[in-house]
Amino acid sequence: MRTGRQYLDALDDGRRVWVGDELIDNVATHPATRAFARLTADFYDLHHRPDLEEVLTYVDDDGVRRSMMWFKNTDRDGLRRKRRYHETVMRLLGAGSAPRSPDVNNSVLRTYVDDPQPWSDQSIGTDGRDLTAGILDFFEEAKAGDLNCAIAFVDPQTDRSRESAQAESPALRVVSRSDDGIVVTGVKAIATGAVFCDVLNVGVFYRPGIPEEQIIFAAVPANAPGVTMVSRESNVRDGETVEHPMAAQGDELDTTVIFENVFIPWNRVFHLGNPAHASYYPQRVFDWVHYEGLVREMVRAELMLGLALLITEHTGVAQLPPVTARLAQFAGFHQTLKAHVLGCEEEGFLTPGGTYKPNVLMFDFGRAYYLENIARLSAELVDLAGRAALVFPSEGQWQEPALRPWLEALHTGPVGRPHDRLKISRVIRDLFQSDWGARMATFENFNGTPLLAIRTFTMKRAEMSAAGPVADLARQICGIETVREEDRTDYLTQAEYARRQDSAAAV
Amino acid sequence: MRTGRQYLDALDDGRRVWVGDELIDNVATHPATRAFARLTADFYDLHHRPDLEEVLTYVDDDGVRRSMMWFKNTDRDGLRRKRRYHETVMRLLGAGSAPRSPDVNNSVLRTYVDDPQPWSDQSIGTDGRDLTAGILDFFEEAKAGDLNCAIAFVDPQTDRSRESAQAESPALRVVSRSDDGIVVTGVKAIATGAVFCDVLNVGVFYRPGIPEEQIIFAAVPANAPGVTMVSRESNVRDGETVEHPMAAQGDELDTTVIFENVFIPWNRVFHLGNPAHASYYPQRVFDWVHYEGLVREMVRAELMLGLALLITEHTGVAQLPPVTARLAQFAGFHQTLKAHVLGCEEEGFLTPGGTYKPNVLMFDFGRAYYLENIARLSAELVDLAGRAALVFPSEGQWQEPALRPWLEALHTGPVGRPHDRLKISRVIRDLFQSDWGARMATFENFNGTPLLAIRTFTMKRAEMSAAGPVADLARQICGIETVREEDRTDYLTQAEYARRQDSAAAV
Amino acid sequence: MRTGRQYLDALDDGRRVWVGDELIDNVATHPATRAFARLTADFYDLHHRPDLEEVLTYVDDDGVRRSMMWFKNTDRDGLRRKRRYHETVMRLLGAGSAPRSPDVNNSVLRTYVDDPQPWSDQSIGTDGRDLTAGILDFFEEAKAGDLNCAIAFVDPQTDRSRESAQAESPALRVVSRSDDGIVVTGVKAIATGAVFCDVLNVGVFYRPGIPEEQIIFAAVPANAPGVTMVSRESNVRDGETVEHPMAAQGDELDTTVIFENVFIPWNRVFHLGNPAHASYYPQRVFDWVHYEGLVREMVRAELMLGLALLITEHTGVAQLPPVTARLAQFAGFHQTLKAHVLGCEEEGFLTPGGTYKPNVLMFDFGRAYYLENIARLSAELVDLAGRAALVFPSEGQWQEPALRPWLEALHTGPVGRPHDRLKISRVIRDLFQSDWGARMATFENFNGTPLLAIRTFTMKRAEMSAAGPVADLARQICGIETVREEDRTDYLTQAEYARRQDSAAAV
Amino acid sequence: MRTGRQYLDALDDGRRVWVGDELIDNVATHPATRAFARLTADFYDLHHRPDLEEVLTYVDDDGVRRSMMWFKNTDRDGLRRKRRYHETVMRLLGAGSAPRSPDVNNSVLRTYVDDPQPWSDQSIGTDGRDLTAGILDFFEEAKAGDLNCAIAFVDPQTDRSRESAQAESPALRVVSRSDDGIVVTGVKAIATGAVFCDVLNVGVFYRPGIPEEQIIFAAVPANAPGVTMVSRESNVRDGETVEHPMAAQGDELDTTVIFENVFIPWNRVFHLGNPAHASYYPQRVFDWVHYEGLVREMVRAELMLGLALLITEHTGVAQLPPVTARLAQFAGFHQTLKAHVLGCEEEGFLTPGGTYKPNVLMFDFGRAYYLENIARLSAELVDLAGRAALVFPSEGQWQEPALRPWLEALHTGPVGRPHDRLKISRVIRDLFQSDWGARMATFENFNGTPLLAIRTFTMKRAEMSAAGPVADLARQICGIETVREEDRTDYLTQAEYARRQDSAAAV
Repeated sequence: MRTGRQYLDALDDGRRVWVGDELIDNVATHPATRAFARLTADFYDLHHRPDLEEVLTYVDDDGVRRSMMWFKNTDRDGLRRKRRYHETVMRLLGAGSAPRSPDVNNSVLRTYVDDPQPWSDQSIGTDGRDLTAGILDFFEEAKAGDLNCAIAFVDPQTDRSRESAQAESPALRVVSRSDDGIVVTGVKAIATGAVFCDVLNVGVFYRPGIPEEQIIFAAVPANAPGVTMVSRESNVRDGETVEHPMAAQGDELDTTVIFENVFIPWNRVFHLGNPAHASYYPQRVFDWVHYEGLVREMVRAELMLGLALLITEHTGVAQLPPVTARLAQFAGFHQTLKAHVLGCEEEGFLTPGGTYKPNVLMFDFGRAYYLENIARLSAELVDLAGRAALVFPSEGQWQEPALRPWLEALHTGPVGRPHDRLKISRVIRDLFQSDWGARMATFENFNGTPLLAIRTFTMKRAEMSAAGPVADLARQICGIETVREEDRTDYLTQAEYARRQDSAAAV
Repeated sequence: MRTGRQYLDALDDGRRVWVGDELIDNVATHPATRAFARLTADFYDLHHRPDLEEVLTYVDDDGVRRSMMWFKNTDRDGLRRKRRYHETVMRLLGAGSAPRSPDVNNSVLRTYVDDPQPWSDQSIGTDGRDLTAGILDFFEEAKAGDLNCAIAFVDPQTDRSRESAQAESPALRVVSRSDDGIVVTGVKAIATGAVFCDVLNVGVFYRPGIPEEQIIFAAVPANAPGVTMVSRESNVRDGETVEHPMAAQGDELDTTVIFENVFIPWNRVFHLGNPAHASYYPQRVFDWVHYEGLVREMVRAELMLGLALLITEHTGVAQLPPVTARLAQFAGFHQTLKAHVLGCEEEGFLTPGGTYKPNVLMFDFGRAYYLENIARLSAELVDLAGRAALVFPSEGQWQEPALRPWLEALHTGPVGRPHDRLKISRVIRDLFQSDWGARMATFENFNGTPLLAIRTFTMKRAEMSAAGPVADLARQICGIETVREEDRTDYLTQAEYARRQDSAAAV
Repeated sequence: MRTGRQYLDALDDGRRVWVGDELIDNVATHPATRAFARLTADFYDLHHRPDLEEVLTYVDDDGVRRSMMWFKNTDRDGLRRKRRYHETVMRLLGAGSAPRSPDVNNSVLRTYVDDPQPWSDQSIGTDGRDLTAGILDFFEEAKAGDLNCAIAFVDPQTDRSRESAQAESPALRVVSRSDDGIVVTGVKAIATGAVFCDVLNVGVFYRPGIPEEQIIFAAVPANAPGVTMVSRESNVRDGETVEHPMAAQGDELDTTVIFENVFIPWNRVFHLGNPAHASYYPQRVFDWVHYEGLVREMVRAELMLGLALLITEHTGVAQLPPVTARLAQFAGFHQTLKAHVLGCEEEGFLTPGGTYKPNVLMFDFGRAYYLENIARLSAELVDLAGRAALVFPSEGQWQEPALRPWLEALHTGPVGRPHDRLKISRVIRDLFQSDWGARMATFENFNGTPLLAIRTFTMKRAEMSAAGPVADLARQICGIETVREEDRTDYLTQAEYARRQDSAAAV
Repeated sequence: MRTGRQYLDALDDGRRVWVGDELIDNVATHPATRAFARLTADFYDLHHRPDLEEVLTYVDDDGVRRSMMWFKNTDRDGLRRKRRYHETVMRLLGAGSAPRSPDVNNSVLRTYVDDPQPWSDQSIGTDGRDLTAGILDFFEEAKAGDLNCAIAFVDPQTDRSRESAQAESPALRVVSRSDDGIVVTGVKAIATGAVFCDVLNVGVFYRPGIPEEQIIFAAVPANAPGVTMVSRESNVRDGETVEHPMAAQGDELDTTVIFENVFIPWNRVFHLGNPAHASYYPQRVFDWVHYEGLVREMVRAELMLGLALLITEHTGVAQLPPVTARLAQFAGFHQTLKAHVLGCEEEGFLTPGGTYKPNVLMFDFGRAYYLENIARLSAELVDLAGRAALVFPSEGQWQEPALRPWLEALHTGPVGRPHDRLKISRVIRDLFQSDWGARMATFENFNGTPLLAIRTFTMKRAEMSAAGPVADLARQICGIETVREEDRTDYLTQAEYARRQDSAAAV
């Protein structure tokens, strides 16, 4: 298994990276990026800790010990084991401070290898090449090297009032083909964590009017000639581990990737050219990422509950009945997210590839629940913390002898040590009152599909039709018969191979 | 097993019942009550349907086939079986139109028989009598006769600004004791469904300042001398099964029960005299009722989703993207409630009596989630239905030949038969636009403990302390050590026997 | 000025009215309708009360004392006077129990007479007839007779996924024309209060695809040959003035009106045939109705605040700090609505006809605010009332000597008389827990334009454009210049005569 | 009138200031503070701009031109003029980027000079000294010098579960008295903008258990011997005016002020020693600040509406119907806040000192409305902006020739210039996705009294009693008589001189 050192060394590969106004020489050492590179290295090193071996690793059929990120869960218990893996990583990496850690990034690949045939068969413009071999080969390469494959799916925004706008967009497209492979040019607008990856997992979300040449699913090394990564300003507080304990852990960055005549060999092309096929996958390829997102949201909710308890006990208000009732909101938030995690695991199913997959409706609506409530509860936590979220001494002030007695008196509550209140306040500030925390919230808000898309897409992934079984009870109560429609429902008009990613025989 | 006929016959027992301005001669036949009596009789008759035998009945250790309401679930699968039982009953009785059906009422008894010793041992004023025998004996009697034991726990409201007010209240109290039993006088302010029960399960919710003589847990027959039941006006639409399909099913009524020198023999007294003991049970005795309430809320959410789909498809708006996004709220509401049901079953534990009990935090916060959202979603459903919830023909108008062509034209949509829209509209009207529906919502809102009480009580039933494990993650992230407190937390100061109803070794 | 007696007598005019399954012989005397007829008669009689003369009447330029409903407000003080008139009527007629009282109904006519020229000029298929004379003539007739002109604008729902569906709908249309007038056939789907009117004010809301022959604005007597009114079931509790004080006041009914070859003379036709013209008025013709709706909502909010105070003081919880904070929501609700009323009056403008009109954005968003919050606050009021909203004695029980002592004890709180609590509870029940109350809420929710339409239409009635003045501050802060667009904004593309109903030189 | 230069020079007065880990030599020049000092200097310079003279200045009775902040409004028009003054300052200083600008700070003094007698008469421990002369004298001094008097009222938090905790707190207290004045020691926990003031306006919020020696209202120069100011870390982005246009404007800082044996002469002591007196003023002394806060919130809402329009038009989604409906929320938010401003001005009253004051209930509930909705709408704005709020090029990237064509293509929408989108995004990021913006939101959330306090305090400032006029309508509808209570209501038990700050004869 890869070590953190190996990972860091691999980053110095000549990749072309902008972060804000600066061109980064080495992602592993530059102040704007080194903290997050180190956090990702920690991810790899965790797998070598003996006390975590059982949770973070497994021995595969060939007797090789591997990271659990490559484990294929084939039943309910396997899924729960997988979840404990992701959850443990999250807890140890800043309670979810690296939302696109390698285990999460790579989980997108699972959907390809689970059922690669349609990806190949449905392709257009491949001269009948079999792409499945490349899919499987790439997966083995990633597994062998414990690679980190960042997701680069999001295209530039275009004028949605004109369908023709899509064709005119600077979105990535095929500009030529040869016997060896394809050449692509254009932009993927957002690839989170791309700067820290080994390989870009390039894909596309379907949009009305998208031309065939923009439909590309493929793998491209981060340092491939012609690739330039342009990241927003970094929110890291490099080195400020005491004052800014969360933000000092690094910023995974959201990056625009520019491809200028980049060559991709055929065995790294996973699908090409079919808008209809692409239209089935805007949410499905992200399923595992979204399930893991729900797990992270559960962890975040536990953290918020804990912070709410800590700060209100410290300031002495926790036992006041109105405050207790407000704290209960955080307990409920946590329980509801946990219920979605447990419930979707309980109601899972077997995919065509034999993977046990959690119930899609339930984890997607779990995410929706989180997004519907998180802004309110974040504001509520800051409100409960009161001034403790805003006005508290810096460590330098605390260490100043003339100020110390006053500051100690000011931060002494009924329980806890005065200096601890500062520590709690700093975490609350970084999470809910900083650019670092705001970006984390905004990332969670989008993460592939924002709330409106969750609602819309999810409704298309089940028989949400008045003629379907979901309305059976209502029809019985109303005393009306099912009107069998000649037309198949929206859901049934989707390709069967796509629907098999949503449900199947329960286990 | 009891039949509906036997149940109806038993109602004609001389009980003294007021409903609105009328004194009811026979609950089984009076227009104000007969519909709901019939619905309860249906409950009993369902158990005799061969096609439902497997779900609604079981064979006990003595080889006797019994209603599943008496089944003791000792593991996770047993609990799921029990839930399918309750859920099936709900689906068949108007999607939850009888929230206090006998299976729900009687589930309160489970908490007594699960661990009867403390109820007896903690009693005051019983001269050392062993009350456990009576508890077990009554449970056997109820089981043998498939009795319906209504819950009469709620005391009159008193001026909460004065603790002394509790002692002056007309609440039920012991007025004398003898070797045979006790004599009680006073009022239980609300006993839902009491008019339709065989036996009143009398209990008490602790309130500050409550005197010993008001602490009474006991069983009293509905027709015991001295008992008068005074019900609010009925919302039944007796006989209007076409026009008011839900309200015509009957109204279970909420009843004030007046006891005037009512005698209760010792073997029907379950606990007496200890306010501290009573203080542990305001939510715990209702645990099973609340879990079943959550199941009913899940069923209601499924019904609402179905109705939303039916009416919007009928009016032709379901496929409009903004409407789809609104419909998704109902799908999410259903999934979230289902997740709580599945999750609390998954995370259950064994009680002292060996019953497998669902996770308390999760079903209580599931109820909280429902109550926090139901008013908004009910209004949303009416809004989605638009005029179809308000303005539609009566059956008489529909049958009028001169009007029919116009009415058919008016109710023809892209799918479905015109007359079906009326049927959908009537159910929506009864559920969300009528006194019958409003009472159902208000009942669900209170059902033992309203939202504020759920929040407050539930927070007291777990180690919701900054020193406890729930804040472990937050402490780790903040980098602070646990401050071990000398004082035990609120939760730990509760009697251990009470806490055992909340959690134990997971199964 | 008309008396209540004159009004009631006029109702017996042979009009053809269905209410639920019954054909009504005389609206003034039938149990399903007489209560509301009486309430409308009370409206007329109020104008004859000497103590109200100053508020409810005025002396016109010809020295004739008239109802203030005919008063033309030409400045800010005039508008405030008009509002006090409407507000007083609402307060005296059950705090808004007759939302479509004659003063409200007739206010729609104001928009026609304010600027009749476009209505005539824009007409198609009138052979150049001048319709303005008819508009003015009809207004004079209505004023002379203090007529009640119900609004019949809402067309049948059609399949919105097909534009052609509009043309196939049974909506009212012109079937023939002659020198005398037009003949119309078809349906107006909802005409609130139509059963109780003198004249139907027929109009139309624009919908995409609507054909010219469906564009009809005209006046039709309620008893015109060929007119049949089909009302939903009535929610009146006829005669139950003690037990159901609100619902006993009557139900104004929502009515479908069928026109079968109904003749309308030219001087009662106000506009004909121009979909573009109609497209400007879906919200504008209702402006005064909506402003009055906002005033009613303010009155309702005051009532809710008062009820919340009364019931919580009676049950003794009003002074508990968490309850005080909840009561504050009702005080805030009332203040916010009042602010919109005062604010829109302050920011008014002069219409082309010289009427001083309140600020449209402000009263429309005031209505939006009410609709966004009313479901939550209604549920909150019921929750605050607790059991007092659900379980309380009927008057018959209260009068029963054996029950009285118990009932008195049960309803004695720290302040107030026991019997008063019943009175408060009954009003809360009728308003928030009954079909009568639910219909009132649903009416308010739609009232011409529901929430989504308020948002959409209102955004089209102001220069809500990034190029417009509303974004000046944002542009200044962002440091960007205005990009002057060649294309006119949506708002500016509307006919100037329509925009003049929205704003003009401030006064 | 003071110039910005004069103000900046005055800051270099030896005051002792910590900001984060640094001791500041000169507030006017240190990078952590100079930007906000400059912004405050801009405030003064604005008054010298000829084009603003009419709005920002007035000529007093002695013919002296003064800043409008000293203008005494004695009628409705005067109040509106005053509002236009504050509003103009806000618009020109970053749309409210200096919430505690001198005009706002000094408005607290208005309440003292309006009715100084009670402040003096109610004092305890002043040996009968007349403090009114000092109040008036200080006001004249402040006016003459255009001083900036920061508000230092907030005491350290104490354990609210013990009343005795208040006496043990390090809160500011009188430690000795002499003929010349008093000596004080202790802490004011939060004084926003204190670092930038001339004089600290020291006061106190009543808390249960507060001892007499902590009740101090007085003026203390910022550089008085013994005063140390300890500020939180600064959020300024000093010099980054292009990349961070809002945060570069400076951070007014929230400061803890330590007083060590600070001498205050009697003529700068405004009140001393009476907890009962102090108990009347936790909200009343802040009335003008809160009214101005409401005006600022109205300006902020206008800015948010503008930003929402700008960014959605730029990304091309503004005209999509679901987006229009979401944009309407911002239009409604703005209108509702504007309605409260207009309404409270319309419903004002004359104070004892003859100042025309806006309606207290209405501006306080206006603030409550803002706080109830701002977290949701801020999240909504970020969600509407989508990726444009998170991922956009830095100016350095934009200026890079190799990147420019790609970046231009990426930011080209249907309207507007590509570079403008960056400018809009930067403002949105600074306001809603940064520590600077988060602090601004948190400040607004507290600003003297947070939401819960607004609700609680406001309910105590009006006759919110079931016996009072606010329940008249409810009593009329319920048909119950007023029960005249012997006990005076809570409101009436307050000192009459305090109540006179709430309402009086309307004007």
